[in-house]
Amino acid sequence: MTVVSQRIDKKYGTRYAQNVDAYRKHLQKNDLSFAMGLTDVKGDRSLRPSQQKRHQDYYIRIVEERKDGIVVRGAKTHISQAPLCNEILIAPCRAMREDDKAYAVAFGVPANSRGITMISAEPEVHEVNLFDHPIAGSVYINDATIIFEDVFIPNERIFLKGEWDFAGQVAYMFANFHRLSAETYKAMELELFTGAAVLMAEYNGVEKVPHVREKLTWLAMYTEAVEILGRSACEHCISEPDSDLVYPNPMVANICKFYFADNWHQATKYIQDIAGGIMVTCPSGKDFMNPETRDLMDKYLGAREGVPTEHRLRMAKLIRDLTSSYEDVLTIHAEGSLEAQKLSIYALADFDLYKAAAKRAARIQDDAKQSIYSRLPDFPPVGLD
Amino acid sequence: MTVVSQRIDKKYGTRYAQNVDAYRKHLQKNDLSFAMGLTDVKGDRSLRPSQQKRHQDYYIRIVEERKDGIVVRGAKTHISQAPLCNEILIAPCRAMREDDKAYAVAFGVPANSRGITMISAEPEVHEVNLFDHPIAGSVYINDATIIFEDVFIPNERIFLKGEWDFAGQVAYMFANFHRLSAETYKAMELELFTGAAVLMAEYNGVEKVPHVREKLTWLAMYTEAVEILGRSACEHCISEPDSDLVYPNPMVANICKFYFADNWHQATKYIQDIAGGIMVTCPSGKDFMNPETRDLMDKYLGAREGVPTEHRLRMAKLIRDLTSSYEDVLTIHAEGSLEAQKLSIYALADFDLYKAAAKRAARIQDDAKQSIYSRLPDFPPVGLD
Amino acid sequence: MTVVSQRIDKKYGTRYAQNVDAYRKHLQKNDLSFAMGLTDVKGDRSLRPSQQKRHQDYYIRIVEERKDGIVVRGAKTHISQAPLCNEILIAPCRAMREDDKAYAVAFGVPANSRGITMISAEPEVHEVNLFDHPIAGSVYINDATIIFEDVFIPNERIFLKGEWDFAGQVAYMFANFHRLSAETYKAMELELFTGAAVLMAEYNGVEKVPHVREKLTWLAMYTEAVEILGRSACEHCISEPDSDLVYPNPMVANICKFYFADNWHQATKYIQDIAGGIMVTCPSGKDFMNPETRDLMDKYLGAREGVPTEHRLRMAKLIRDLTSSYEDVLTIHAEGSLEAQKLSIYALADFDLYKAAAKRAARIQDDAKQSIYSRLPDFPPVGLD
Amino acid sequence: MTVVSQRIDKKYGTRYAQNVDAYRKHLQKNDLSFAMGLTDVKGDRSLRPSQQKRHQDYYIRIVEERKDGIVVRGAKTHISQAPLCNEILIAPCRAMREDDKAYAVAFGVPANSRGITMISAEPEVHEVNLFDHPIAGSVYINDATIIFEDVFIPNERIFLKGEWDFAGQVAYMFANFHRLSAETYKAMELELFTGAAVLMAEYNGVEKVPHVREKLTWLAMYTEAVEILGRSACEHCISEPDSDLVYPNPMVANICKFYFADNWHQATKYIQDIAGGIMVTCPSGKDFMNPETRDLMDKYLGAREGVPTEHRLRMAKLIRDLTSSYEDVLTIHAEGSLEAQKLSIYALADFDLYKAAAKRAARIQDDAKQSIYSRLPDFPPVGLD
Repeated sequence: MTVVSQRIDKKYGTRYAQNVDAYRKHLQKNDLSFAMGLTDVKGDRSLRPSQQKRHQDYYIRIVEERKDGIVVRGAKTHISQAPLCNEILIAPCRAMREDDKAYAVAFGVPANSRGITMISAEPEVHEVNLFDHPIAGSVYINDATIIFEDVFIPNERIFLKGEWDFAGQVAYMFANFHRLSAETYKAMELELFTGAAVLMAEYNGVEKVPHVREKLTWLAMYTEAVEILGRSACEHCISEPDSDLVYPNPMVANICKFYFADNWHQATKYIQDIAGGIMVTCPSGKDFMNPETRDLMDKYLGAREGVPTEHRLRMAKLIRDLTSSYEDVLTIHAEGSLEAQKLSIYALADFDLYKAAAKRAARIQDDAKQSIYSRLPDFPPVGLD
Repeated sequence: MTVVSQRIDKKYGTRYAQNVDAYRKHLQKNDLSFAMGLTDVKGDRSLRPSQQKRHQDYYIRIVEERKDGIVVRGAKTHISQAPLCNEILIAPCRAMREDDKAYAVAFGVPANSRGITMISAEPEVHEVNLFDHPIAGSVYINDATIIFEDVFIPNERIFLKGEWDFAGQVAYMFANFHRLSAETYKAMELELFTGAAVLMAEYNGVEKVPHVREKLTWLAMYTEAVEILGRSACEHCISEPDSDLVYPNPMVANICKFYFADNWHQATKYIQDIAGGIMVTCPSGKDFMNPETRDLMDKYLGAREGVPTEHRLRMAKLIRDLTSSYEDVLTIHAEGSLEAQKLSIYALADFDLYKAAAKRAARIQDDAKQSIYSRLPDFPPVGLD
Repeated sequence: MTVVSQRIDKKYGTRYAQNVDAYRKHLQKNDLSFAMGLTDVKGDRSLRPSQQKRHQDYYIRIVEERKDGIVVRGAKTHISQAPLCNEILIAPCRAMREDDKAYAVAFGVPANSRGITMISAEPEVHEVNLFDHPIAGSVYINDATIIFEDVFIPNERIFLKGEWDFAGQVAYMFANFHRLSAETYKAMELELFTGAAVLMAEYNGVEKVPHVREKLTWLAMYTEAVEILGRSACEHCISEPDSDLVYPNPMVANICKFYFADNWHQATKYIQDIAGGIMVTCPSGKDFMNPETRDLMDKYLGAREGVPTEHRLRMAKLIRDLTSSYEDVLTIHAEGSLEAQKLSIYALADFDLYKAAAKRAARIQDDAKQSIYSRLPDFPPVGLD
Repeated sequence: MTVVSQRIDKKYGTRYAQNVDAYRKHLQKNDLSFAMGLTDVKGDRSLRPSQQKRHQDYYIRIVEERKDGIVVRGAKTHISQAPLCNEILIAPCRAMREDDKAYAVAFGVPANSRGITMISAEPEVHEVNLFDHPIAGSVYINDATIIFEDVFIPNERIFLKGEWDFAGQVAYMFANFHRLSAETYKAMELELFTGAAVLMAEYNGVEKVPHVREKLTWLAMYTEAVEILGRSACEHCISEPDSDLVYPNPMVANICKFYFADNWHQATKYIQDIAGGIMVTCPSGKDFMNPETRDLMDKYLGAREGVPTEHRLRMAKLIRDLTSSYEDVLTIHAEGSLEAQKLSIYALADFDLYKAAAKRAARIQDDAKQSIYSRLPDFPPVGLD
């Protein structure tokens, strides 16, 4: 918002930058946590906000303008940790056209404001049992749908109000940071993911089997490549003109997120292949804690000598949690879907550079001179030679 | 067992075929359900049964021979529905060497025999809630670990006892049927899987988006290819010599199972991409049944006009269940892992035929004449032409 | 043409079936070879035939109608073996609209008719040297561009003339047979392809290296799967109603061709990985025939003991030919591109069946009852259970 | 050689570093070009140098030691540009054991020394025709097999002589630089490769077709990812201890080369899919220069309005050259095969770090504390919570 609010003020003479700045200071001073509400519930995806037929509230919109503020209605969804936050920051999730003007709105609002309802996602598991669910039992991201039924937003908390031509910029600038945020936590997750694969292979006594070693190699490469690409997005960050702000390199950040998400299902296939059926046919940790069954499980569900059976069972359970449909979907859709990254990469690609290189190699002479390749001398005019 | 017991009797003059026949009649007459116990718990996978270091009971073995029968010890695991069956049929899961003789044992036994303990897999879900878990809540395969602590097996129920050179044959013949069994239920599962993808695309209004249409096409192809290949394994079945028994074509059945399992994670990636984040951030069905939240969910979580919100939510939940780690592992490991199919395909491949074809094309003359290609006339001896 | 001409006559009272029949008898009686000219040169692919801007002759069209026949202009391309044939059979390559009426034309014509010019593809190699080019040197498919500059076609050789609504049917019916024709020759090609991989692995002494064995297994599976699917397209052929004609099962034939082409580049990657750099850095066969260099090559370019160096070199050359860009493009584009198969599969898929299955599993009750799944009893109306 | 010669001298008191230094100065002073001869012809790949059965000369070895030097015999292969160089630098291509001592040899030698014979690879094309072969006709890498028949090497040009325990280090240190060298020229090649795909799509009028746009996006991503990873291998280079030398980051360089080569066949499939059959059925440029056929080709082989037909034909020919088997093999095998990269990545991976992360997540307490994860506080000892 900081970057884009300055751009809007420049064009329209608004004072959003000041509002953003004041809001940031408010958050800092009072140590308030906040959630970013970007994704609208969207309704029929083939229709833009103002085209929706069932009702007009599938994207958050301004339903009333008052002297001292606006009233908004609509809903945001998949908003991680929202019910645990003090404040909610709302922004548009897509580019808009003039018809969608009422939907071009951004603001900050206390989470307990009148008119706001949150409905949390169904948790993966319903009891605390960290043996059986070391991830799903300890981390509940609490993705919520936040519904705004005519919520009042005072003027000083408004960061966008009808400037529809900037809605896309807000969404894309957010994505630049958000893609990278995925890479920072995903690189860590992959370290433990790959570690779980290695340990399970060792526990089962198969870590030297060639196809297992090949899969472990692939997992290590996948882990490191995400780390390298994410780091490179920072090292080659972009400076906002006339500003001291930098943001992650969009091309690199998008490639990194795509690479990570595009290979995830391959990674889950590999780790499940290595872990074996015990991942899902393993009895409950409660059976392992039960004196009646513990000794039998301890004797028969062990594997390599020297490895406690408990370690193997805990690792099997960890891998199940790491490859749940929740983790799959988090990978594909959080921080933007695979298609969103493709769109960004397509938009960012320097196709003119590539074309100039190809023309030179094919010995095609051309008037258009737009890239470094064109600044190289042309090959001489030729027939067959 | 029917096929292999005849082979054993032929070689060793045993009378297993008669035992198998009597056991089958016993099952039929009393309408008894039975589970097939194949997979041993295995311990350290780098060691054969008799080499295990921690203890000698990782594969079921004969611990005592009596005049009227044998006493067995060990454990089988991943045995679907075992706790619901009347009888358990036990057979070796791998080829063995002479050292492993005590482990070459097959028999039928009542499930409630003295010395048998079963520990069921932890269920995916712990309550009946078919809105949130239409698959996991209605189908609990009850994969069990079955432990045999010195169980007595009378002579007339023994089908293999120490003939270690036939242990592999029992396992492989079982696999021929078992691979196909996967294909029969998987072809049906893929129909509903692909249907869920189509419906979710339609509900969300994206079924005409090119990348979605491409994925739906791929899913239809995947579904039909599994059907075609499985059917072909039956149509080109193999006759056991000197017998009226046929079994599914092993090459085709293995290719089909491999094709299905190898592409499964691609399929889950596609359906999760189409379904969107709602798959896992959707509130519980209990929230939808709750009058306080129902109307809000109904309004905001709907999509295309004319489609009840409930349909969309139920479909999202179905897709989550269809792409759980349980389903993933069932795909990869049930009926033999990907590597097991590769081993079979490698063993069954007619490499000599392929080699003869390549030699002819490369104009290499060779004395070895072992295939139809070699019965074709050789190209004349040549230098460069 | 036989099938579709009957359909046209039925609708429009034309007598094309009679013409087709007479033409077939003419070909048979005089033992004439003929080439099928389907693919037009097409110009700008984003425009239909009548929309082309540069000129109107990118698709073959009728430029004049006379009492005794028509005059046609345009060009067909990629027409294998055309310059070696007696007759050319021309048909439309796509569905058309009314505007494209002049392009809805099919006919038979002697290859040496006035106004026809053929320009052959540049051959892969320009000398006969079957050591270095065992495939490219012995098989020149002679793909030609056939240009029709105002060629007269007498009435009795016309099989379609302006019935634009049947243009697509001609193309699709041809594809049904053509896809299968690919599978018949490709299944044989894959046998020698896989054989070359096995032999090269053996010659180099790497056939037991795990990653090589894995690749050989995959190649055998690929080879057999193409065979099985192609055979199944015949075994489950479709009968034309009111006719004694059958045609290959379109769904199966399309899946087979797609499976083959979609995996081809994976196969070339594997065989090139196994063959090693010698595939392309090997000196010429002429150097091997040259007494000055033969002994050195024989000594140093050998590999496994007992295998003549000549065999290894010939096999390396064969693999180069098998993985040339010519073979790649033949795989992807001949008999219809990958996208053409996808379009067919999408059109043929029984999505309603899949949807009914998914609805039943998600416990969605619905009025529409269109498939076998709908004939199964519905699950009872439910809330959470 | 500079890095490793110092290490050898340190251990064995030899004076190789001085020889390397003198040789470098000799090359610089006289402006001599040189080729690096690394890959031996290898014979049976399942046997080490000294185990070869057919003869002992499959790897270059010392056959005689004299007071003033050594005599070597053997052959190196795939040595690009060797016949055009003044000097050849020979080094071992693999790790060796004590038995292979005679093969642990490195030296510099004038290319025209007595006893050296070079046999060049068969060129891809045999005439200069840059219309039909813009790449293969203008770039002949002249990969040669260099045979050493008892060549004398004076003491001052020897850099390794029997120190078998350093043979592997020489090979691996070379690979660190060599992998990166691939990335520098491949990143440029991919720019023109992707440019050719874009131009051909535009020429054909299909650049907005969704599946084409998706492929172009993928190609742009592939191109940029190779650039980013290669650059990162430099930015995160490794310092040789006690030396002012740095070398490319081995993990990053290996990941980059693997990523490039592993995706190459996918890239060729995409560009061939976009380019269409004309890539290989296009008549020769000679036909285009021929007045008899030029006008017909110009009229009928054109595509989008405004694009000269010549441009389209040249681009089709360029793509054929870019996807030849030569380019494929260069990608896979030059600078080390895919398997070589996998071995390096496996060897370099920090599996202990990954394992510590996984144990912490699965709440396994362990005595081994070897990574940053282990320095984090353990989770408290737990049963189920």
